[in-house]
Amino acid sequence: MLIVHDFDASPNCLKTKILLYELGIPFEQRSVDRPILQSAAYRAKFPTGFAPAIEDGEVRLSESGAIALYLAEKHNKLMPSSNAGRSKMLQAMFVEAAILSPTVGGQGLFGELFRPEAERNLPRITDLRVKVQHVGHVLGELLGDASFFAGEFSIADIQLYAATAKTLESGTLEAPPKNLVAWRARMTDRPAVARAREEYVHYRRQA
Amino acid sequence: MLIVHDFDASPNCLKTKILLYELGIPFEQRSVDRPILQSAAYRAKFPTGFAPAIEDGEVRLSESGAIALYLAEKHNKLMPSSNAGRSKMLQAMFVEAAILSPTVGGQGLFGELFRPEAERNLPRITDLRVKVQHVGHVLGELLGDASFFAGEFSIADIQLYAATAKTLESGTLEAPPKNLVAWRARMTDRPAVARAREEYVHYRRQA
Repeated sequence: MLIVHDFDASPNCLKTKILLYELGIPFEQRSVDRPILQSAAYRAKFPTGFAPAIEDGEVRLSESGAIALYLAEKHNKLMPSSNAGRSKMLQAMFVEAAILSPTVGGQGLFGELFRPEAERNLPRITDLRVKVQHVGHVLGELLGDASFFAGEFSIADIQLYAATAKTLESGTLEAPPKNLVAWRARMTDRPAVARAREEYVHYRRQA
Repeated sequence: MLIVHDFDASPNCLKTKILLYELGIPFEQRSVDRPILQSAAYRAKFPTGFAPAIEDGEVRLSESGAIALYLAEKHNKLMPSSNAGRSKMLQAMFVEAAILSPTVGGQGLFGELFRPEAERNLPRITDLRVKVQHVGHVLGELLGDASFFAGEFSIADIQLYAATAKTLESGTLEAPPKNLVAWRARMTDRPAVARAREEYVHYRRQA
């Protein structure tokens, strides 16, 4: 059975949980925390030292985007078959990994804002606040009139959901694009998303 | 003919140039700068407002990782056929996009270090200096005993090359992993890499 190493305060892990529920893949969950992630045993399996990470037979893989592409290809689901749809899906996946996640993800705005006042790095927060407005605008433009980022529901939507939902729900985004707000609601209504969110300590704490 | 929008001081654009030379795809280059990237005309084509970006028939695509997967799939080259090789390639691609690039790329250590002293954000630089050591270690672990990140040469090596080479050449990495240093030399010797580097103002300035 597929094993997922899951750190329950991480929006990155939420993506992989949603994916596994959407694909209907049975899995065994092993909860990890910072000491486990930093242990030699974990690093020997996963050199990045990050979660989520999966063990699927001989394959050991970290990085939620890599896991999503690997599992979607293996099960031949959640990937548009058209050239145009597929390119849009890939673009959205890399926008999430390279722009959205570093700006509003664990290393960024949310991580900073949860720190006590004295530890905050004000120039960094100011910089991130400007960037997050741009990221929100870009996401609205990429979505356009479509219901999902690649035209049809795909792994790109799963990758984008965690950080985008947190950003919208926290009010960090000023005047968020209406199509993005509607997309968040559409995503949140999916049973797999609702189930994965329900299991997340971090989201429960925010609710 | 494929059109590539290229910003010659950007390591991200270097990746796409290397890819086009490796694949032997003829292309027309359009140089862009910050004012063009921020123009309404460019944003109408590419909502991210970033370079590199390609126009390939009806497909308009930004994000170097998305471009790499799209072109490699289209030409059925530079992608391992084995399950294990492919998963390693995907992992390396997302490590580059999500960890390496935000840490040492344009938004990060190099951008900060090129600023005049007065503009530098010291807590951010300190933070990034710690992170870059970790990233270098992770890359060495991911490469292991192999010649290339997915066992055979693939788009993952192209994605990782620009930021890794800059980091190694700048001396930012203390005691860099020997296998990573050897990989950089192996990559730099490739004709496509040498040609793309030669065309890069930024690299010439550094040499």
